[in-house]
Amino acid sequence: MVRLRFQQSLDDLKERLLVMAGMAEQAIQRAIEAYRTRDMSICDLVDHGEQAINRFEREIDQMALDLLAMEQPMAIDLRFILAVIKINADLERVGDAASSISDRVRDLQAFPVVDLPVDIPRMASLAAGMVRKALHAFIEGDAELARSVLSMDDNVDRLNDSAYFSLSSLMKSQPELTPQALNAMMIARNLERVADHATNVAEDVIFWVRGADVRHHVPQAGGSSTPAAD
Amino acid sequence: MVRLRFQQSLDDLKERLLVMAGMAEQAIQRAIEAYRTRDMSICDLVDHGEQAINRFEREIDQMALDLLAMEQPMAIDLRFILAVIKINADLERVGDAASSISDRVRDLQAFPVVDLPVDIPRMASLAAGMVRKALHAFIEGDAELARSVLSMDDNVDRLNDSAYFSLSSLMKSQPELTPQALNAMMIARNLERVADHATNVAEDVIFWVRGADVRHHVPQAGGSSTPAAD
Repeated sequence: MVRLRFQQSLDDLKERLLVMAGMAEQAIQRAIEAYRTRDMSICDLVDHGEQAINRFEREIDQMALDLLAMEQPMAIDLRFILAVIKINADLERVGDAASSISDRVRDLQAFPVVDLPVDIPRMASLAAGMVRKALHAFIEGDAELARSVLSMDDNVDRLNDSAYFSLSSLMKSQPELTPQALNAMMIARNLERVADHATNVAEDVIFWVRGADVRHHVPQAGGSSTPAAD
Repeated sequence: MVRLRFQQSLDDLKERLLVMAGMAEQAIQRAIEAYRTRDMSICDLVDHGEQAINRFEREIDQMALDLLAMEQPMAIDLRFILAVIKINADLERVGDAASSISDRVRDLQAFPVVDLPVDIPRMASLAAGMVRKALHAFIEGDAELARSVLSMDDNVDRLNDSAYFSLSSLMKSQPELTPQALNAMMIARNLERVADHATNVAEDVIFWVRGADVRHHVPQAGGSSTPAAD
């Protein structure tokens, strides 16, 4: 009976984290929509959304803390709760990234719209797709699916590197476009960070399911990518 | 007796985290020394150091997990262990930031050294000082000291904003200096992230000591600053 109630609490915790993940993914999609359309009202949505995400992060941390305090979770449940705490922190930072992108879009308002050598929407859909896939792996407890997210990170890194190269070349050849190019470069960088957070989430899923820690290229776990901060 | 052993394990965990913090702080100082001197051998030190930091992160997580699994920690001990897990993750990301700075320094090698309108060493000593102060607050369990770290974050944010402004102006007026200016801008941004991580650590110390969650401007806790990702 107690055990059943504990299982129910774990399910509630998982449910809450999935709502949090949906909010984080939506925040990125909205920020990129704001970039595409230069619609400042969408930036406002992103900023309000970030506050909601921050509230959710605290609630989820508290739920996890209460579960650890109330019960003596068995190894697998304990690892699940710790994974939730770590995933929760990464999702909150995805919200921060969305909000940083929204700041960049506001800054872009002051300058004429120009065609830039970077496909921000494509990078965004790749990064958001990684978040979605990592969370799907979390729902299914599927370590293989989580592992496939790790390899996707390299693509986003490459796109960010080429954005850095092409945008800095543009700044040199057309200095008058520096503000637009710089903002686009920062947005690309934020999307690379979103991909890093998705990678962290995938690693935490594997840690939970397999008890294997694949962070930082631990070979036997086959991690193919390591998040890197900028 | 069991209780004594548990207390000893908590002390070991704290000790280990302090070593980790020292490594993270040293990584930043080395990366900035490499920037100042353009000494690539220091970049190598930073990269080796990052691998050691990553190993430490895993060991500390495992120690924390084992403590949670072996014992039923009381509320304050439980919060302490969760704070260690969160601080551990932030320190690892400080190491990532140092490594990103080191990458920028390597990139700078290809270009002549020029005088840039940004005081990187000053930003670095402020950011590293925040990490040191946050860890001191952790050692002492001093929530007031931790709170003083939160207010320091605004200074680093301001320095980063002014670096962005002055360096982008430079790129427009002297496009031939774009590579140097861009790398300096990215280094400043990484230092701002280090300050954000120090802020996270300070918040976790307060969470542990007071049980108050001051993240995201929860007013009653008087948090004056919120980490923001870029």
